[in-house]
Amino acid sequence: MKIQPKNKKQLLKAALGEIPCDLVITNVQLVNVITGEIYPADIFVYDGFIAHVEYQNVGSQLDTAREVVDGQGRYLIPGLIDAHEHIESSMMTPRNFAKGVIPHGTTTVVTDPHEIANVCGLEGVRYMHQAGDDLPMRQLIDIPSCVPAVPGLENAGAEFFAAEVEELSGLDRVIGLAEVMDFLAVIHGEDRMMSIIDVMDKKGLYLQGHAPYVSGRMLSAYLCGGPNTCHETRDRKEALEKLRSGMFVDARDSSITKNVQEVYEGVKGVRFFDHLCLCTDDREADDILHVGHMNDVVRSAIRCGMDPVTAIKSATLNTAREIHLENLGAIAPGYVADLLLVDDLTELKPSHVFFGGKLVARDGKLTVEIPHREYPLEKVNTMCVKELSREDFVIHAPVENGTVTVHVMEYPDLNLSSTLLTTAQLPVKNGEVCLEGEDLKFVAVVNRHKGHDTIGLGIVKGFGTTCGALASTVSHDSHNLTIVYDTPENALLAANALIRCGGGMSAVKDGSLLHVLELPLAGLISLKEAKDLAEDSQKMKEANRALGLTGMENPLLRIVTLALPVIPNIKMSDLGMVDVLKKEFIPMFAE
Amino acid sequence: MKIQPKNKKQLLKAALGEIPCDLVITNVQLVNVITGEIYPADIFVYDGFIAHVEYQNVGSQLDTAREVVDGQGRYLIPGLIDAHEHIESSMMTPRNFAKGVIPHGTTTVVTDPHEIANVCGLEGVRYMHQAGDDLPMRQLIDIPSCVPAVPGLENAGAEFFAAEVEELSGLDRVIGLAEVMDFLAVIHGEDRMMSIIDVMDKKGLYLQGHAPYVSGRMLSAYLCGGPNTCHETRDRKEALEKLRSGMFVDARDSSITKNVQEVYEGVKGVRFFDHLCLCTDDREADDILHVGHMNDVVRSAIRCGMDPVTAIKSATLNTAREIHLENLGAIAPGYVADLLLVDDLTELKPSHVFFGGKLVARDGKLTVEIPHREYPLEKVNTMCVKELSREDFVIHAPVENGTVTVHVMEYPDLNLSSTLLTTAQLPVKNGEVCLEGEDLKFVAVVNRHKGHDTIGLGIVKGFGTTCGALASTVSHDSHNLTIVYDTPENALLAANALIRCGGGMSAVKDGSLLHVLELPLAGLISLKEAKDLAEDSQKMKEANRALGLTGMENPLLRIVTLALPVIPNIKMSDLGMVDVLKKEFIPMFAE
Repeated sequence: MKIQPKNKKQLLKAALGEIPCDLVITNVQLVNVITGEIYPADIFVYDGFIAHVEYQNVGSQLDTAREVVDGQGRYLIPGLIDAHEHIESSMMTPRNFAKGVIPHGTTTVVTDPHEIANVCGLEGVRYMHQAGDDLPMRQLIDIPSCVPAVPGLENAGAEFFAAEVEELSGLDRVIGLAEVMDFLAVIHGEDRMMSIIDVMDKKGLYLQGHAPYVSGRMLSAYLCGGPNTCHETRDRKEALEKLRSGMFVDARDSSITKNVQEVYEGVKGVRFFDHLCLCTDDREADDILHVGHMNDVVRSAIRCGMDPVTAIKSATLNTAREIHLENLGAIAPGYVADLLLVDDLTELKPSHVFFGGKLVARDGKLTVEIPHREYPLEKVNTMCVKELSREDFVIHAPVENGTVTVHVMEYPDLNLSSTLLTTAQLPVKNGEVCLEGEDLKFVAVVNRHKGHDTIGLGIVKGFGTTCGALASTVSHDSHNLTIVYDTPENALLAANALIRCGGGMSAVKDGSLLHVLELPLAGLISLKEAKDLAEDSQKMKEANRALGLTGMENPLLRIVTLALPVIPNIKMSDLGMVDVLKKEFIPMFAE
Repeated sequence: MKIQPKNKKQLLKAALGEIPCDLVITNVQLVNVITGEIYPADIFVYDGFIAHVEYQNVGSQLDTAREVVDGQGRYLIPGLIDAHEHIESSMMTPRNFAKGVIPHGTTTVVTDPHEIANVCGLEGVRYMHQAGDDLPMRQLIDIPSCVPAVPGLENAGAEFFAAEVEELSGLDRVIGLAEVMDFLAVIHGEDRMMSIIDVMDKKGLYLQGHAPYVSGRMLSAYLCGGPNTCHETRDRKEALEKLRSGMFVDARDSSITKNVQEVYEGVKGVRFFDHLCLCTDDREADDILHVGHMNDVVRSAIRCGMDPVTAIKSATLNTAREIHLENLGAIAPGYVADLLLVDDLTELKPSHVFFGGKLVARDGKLTVEIPHREYPLEKVNTMCVKELSREDFVIHAPVENGTVTVHVMEYPDLNLSSTLLTTAQLPVKNGEVCLEGEDLKFVAVVNRHKGHDTIGLGIVKGFGTTCGALASTVSHDSHNLTIVYDTPENALLAANALIRCGGGMSAVKDGSLLHVLELPLAGLISLKEAKDLAEDSQKMKEANRALGLTGMENPLLRIVTLALPVIPNIKMSDLGMVDVLKKEFIPMFAE
C-alpha cells in the first residue's frame, strides 16, 4: 500500500526542480535505514513527500525551495512509528494524545481502538477514527478483532463478528486487523475467527498478532492461521523462537510492561533484525509527558546494546513493512516526509519534528495548533450498572461458620500481569468468606454494559494492595468495573464513586475516598490535556501507594489487566474466575 | 498478499500434529534468511505449506508425517525467486522453460511477457499465463507496461493502454506491472503512463521499474512516479545511488549482460542489503542448460565476495518483499514450502528441489512429468511482411556519386547494449550509399506486424560482425525483423529465410545461408525442449562467429537490443534512427 500524493504530476515537477519545493532541510547527517549508512545530505520536500535527496550537501539548488531549514549538522531520521498501541491507554482523546506524543517524534501510530470498542462498539471505533482526522500525525487504525476478548468467558459492551470487521474496514485510515488475542481461536481454527481473518486477507490488510508464551507447534499453528506479529513477547527464548519463525516481534515498553531488554537479549545474536519492531502498547499521560513515547522505547533498545541505526530502523522501516506501507519509514524520494532532527542518536530528543514536510514541533513544544473539537460520544455516560449494595460484594460460603478452601488467582510477580492458580483455606463467619493475611484480597468484576448485570467474585493473592479498595473501569478488555478490596463496604464506596462520574479509577481506605481519577469518555478517557491529566494521574498513583501498591514502577495500571482473559493462566471476568488456556470457568470453592 | 492454503483448518491441525503432515525433511542445516542464522532443524510440510519447524532436530515426532526425507546434514534454503525475467528470452515455451530451470532450483519467476505482448497483444499474454498453469513452479506475471516500448518511436504488433492493463490484471497469477521502461514518460508524468500506474496502485500491485543510467533529480522523479525497482543498473556508482534512494536494485546476470559484479562493488560498503535482489532478465536455453539459472546468479554474487546467506536472501526473501508476497522466500511456519537441499552454499547445485512441498527435481533431473500441451497460438505464423526486394535495403543518397556524411549508431563496447551518436563520411555510387571499412554495417528494421510496412534504415558502427548479414525477429521490444548487413543482397536472403519459417534468427555470408534458428511461436519462441534448442542455438552462435562476432561471451543476443529505444543513447526502429533520451528521430544524413 502506498500513501499517494495529492497531485503526482506536480510532485514530479518538484523532484525535477521545475517548480519550487516547499522546503529544503540542508546540512544534515541523513540516517538511511534502508542501507544502514549515515552521510551528509540535503532533503527537498514537496506537498508532504520527499521529492529529492541531494547527497554531499554541496551544490544543492536551494533556490528551488520556498523555505530552507538549516539542519546544523544534526542527524535526520524518519518519524517514529509505534507498531502497536491503544490510544485509550493514554487516557487521552486522540487529539490530546497527538499533542502529547508529537513533540517526542512519534509521527505515526498503529492504534487498536479495542478498549473503546468493547464499551461502545462500532460507534467507539468510528469516534476514534473521526477524532483522529486532520491531525499533524498519522493515527492508523487496526480493527479490533476480539470484541469481547474471548467470547463466552465475559460480557463486554459489544460483540464484533466478520460483518462488523468488514464494515469498519471501509474507514480511511484502517490498515489491518488488531491484535488477534484469542490465539486459541486461531490455533484451533474456530469459525468466527477464521471468517474475520478471511475478510482481512481478501482486502490485503495485515493481521496483527498477540501470542504470549505461545511456542512450538502452537506458535506454528498460530502463524499458519495468519497473524504474524506479536507484541506480547516477554522472555528471551520466546523472542528468538518468534523471530526465527518469521513473526514480527514488536518489542514493547509500555507503562507497565517493559519487554525491550529481554527481547533484545534473546535476539541479539542474530544477523538480520528485519522482523524486529518496537511499540508502546499502553502508555499513560504522565509517562508520555515526563518520560517519552516511541523515542523512549528506541532509547531503551539502544541502552540494552542495540546499535542506534538498527534500533531506529526497528521503529521506522521495519514497522512500515510490517503494516504493508511502502513509502513510509525511510528518507528517500517518494517517501512521506515525516522527519526528525536529533542532536544525537542515543537520546533521540527531536529538536524538529516534521510531519508531511511541515514543522509540527520544536524543542519539545508543538508549533502547530490542534483545534479543539467536540464529539457527541464525549458527553455520554457509559456506566450502566444497577444500584449496588454491600451484599453484591460478599462471597457466600456453603457453611455458616468454619473454613472453606477457595480457588485463588495468584500473581507470582508484582511487575507481571500473568498469574497462577492456587488455593487458600479461609475462615467463614455468618456464611461470609473472610480474608486472612494482607496478601489476599477480594475481587469483584461488575458488568457495566447495557443488558448485563453480572458480577464475578473471587480471591486474588499477590496483587499488591495491603488494604482498602481499588476500583477501575479501565479493565482490559471488557472494561467492566473491577474492584480489589478488603471489605464489601469499601468496595461499595469505591464502585459508587465511579458510577457517579461516568467511570475512571478510585481508591478507598477505611471508609474514606482517597482520590477519584475521572475518565468520563467510555469510562476510559479523560477530556483533559496531558499536563492536567498527568497531575490527576499522579494523585491517583499516590492513592494507590497509600493502599500498599509500592512495589512497582507504575502502580496506576496494576489493576487494568486483572480481568483480561487472554493473559495466562488465571483471570477474572464478570462471569467468574477463568482458566485462560482451557477457556473454562473455575469454581469458587475447591474440592 | 499471501498465498493461501486450500484448507487452512487442516493446515492448523497438521501444525499442531493432530493429523499427519505430508512430508518431514529431517537433519538439515536450515538457512534462515529472516535472521541470517544457520542451525539444525526438521521441517514439517502439509499441503504445500510449512506447517512446523522443529529446532535442534531432536525429539521431532517423525511419525506425524507420511513421508520422511533425510537431509543428511545438507543446507536447506528457500526456493530461488527470479525478480525479473522474460520467459520468451529463453526462446522456450513456459512449459519447456519450467523443465529447464526447475532442476537449478528456481521455483518462482516474476516474468514479464512483454516480448510476446508486442507481437501478439493481449492474446500473447493470455497464452503465457495459460501455458504457465499447473506447473511444478510458480510463474508470476507482471503486466507489460510499455507496449510498444516508446509510443510514436516505433510500431509494434500491439498497443497497451490503461484498459488493456486493467483487463490483464484480472488474471490469476498477475502480481504487478512489468518494467516501466519508458522512464521519461514517468518522469514527465505523461497521461497514458500515469493512468496505467494508477490502475495498478488502486489494485495494490507493485510497479517494476527500469531506469538505466537514470540518476539525480531524474531518478528522484522516477521514484516519485511510482516504480521502485530496477534491473538495469550497470555501474557501481549508479547501484549505490539507487539503493540509497530506496529502489530495489535487481542485480542482473543475463546471457548478455552481467551486472552483478559491478552492482556488488557499488553497494558492498553498506550495512543492510534489504533492497538488493537478483535476476536473470534474459537467459537463453543453452545458457540455462549448461550454466544455470538463478543459482548461477547467486553463485556469481558469492564469487564477487557477497556473504552466501545475504546472497541467498537477495534471491528469496528480499524479492518476495519487492513483489509484495508475504509468505514466500523464507523457511518458517505458514510460508510456502518451496525448498532446496544443497551440499554447499557457494555452488548451489540443489540435490533436491521441493515445490509446494513436493519433490520436483533430484540431482539436476526433473522427477515429475510436465505433460505436453498444445495451444492455438503456437500454430500461428506472425510474420506479416510484404514481399521484399534488394531495393528495400538500399540507402539512397541525395547525390548520384561522391560522398555523404551520415549519422551513425556507434557501440563503444562489444559487451554493452548502450550506444553513442557519431557520424561518418561514406562514398556514394550510382545514388547508393556504400560502406567503407569492416567496422561499419547497414541496419534495417523491417516492421513485421499487421497493418504496418515501414522499414527503418541506418548505419551502425562497432556492432561486431565483419561481414555478411545477421537477421533476427527477436528484437526487443517491437520484435521487428532486424538485419545488420554488408550488402542488400545478403540482407534480402537473411530476411526471406525468416519470413518463410515464421521468424527466428538467420546468418548469411557471401550469398549463402549459414544457419536458421527457427522460432515459429511469435517469431520469438521455439517449440523444442531445452536440450534440442540448445544444440540449435549453438549452431546459430557458430554462424554468428563466422560473421565476425567473436569478441563476446554470447554472440547470439548481440542483435536483440539494437532496436530497443529505451536503452541510451541511440537505437534503430522501423521508423528510423532514434535519439532515446530526446525521444526524437535522427535524420539519415548529417549537416
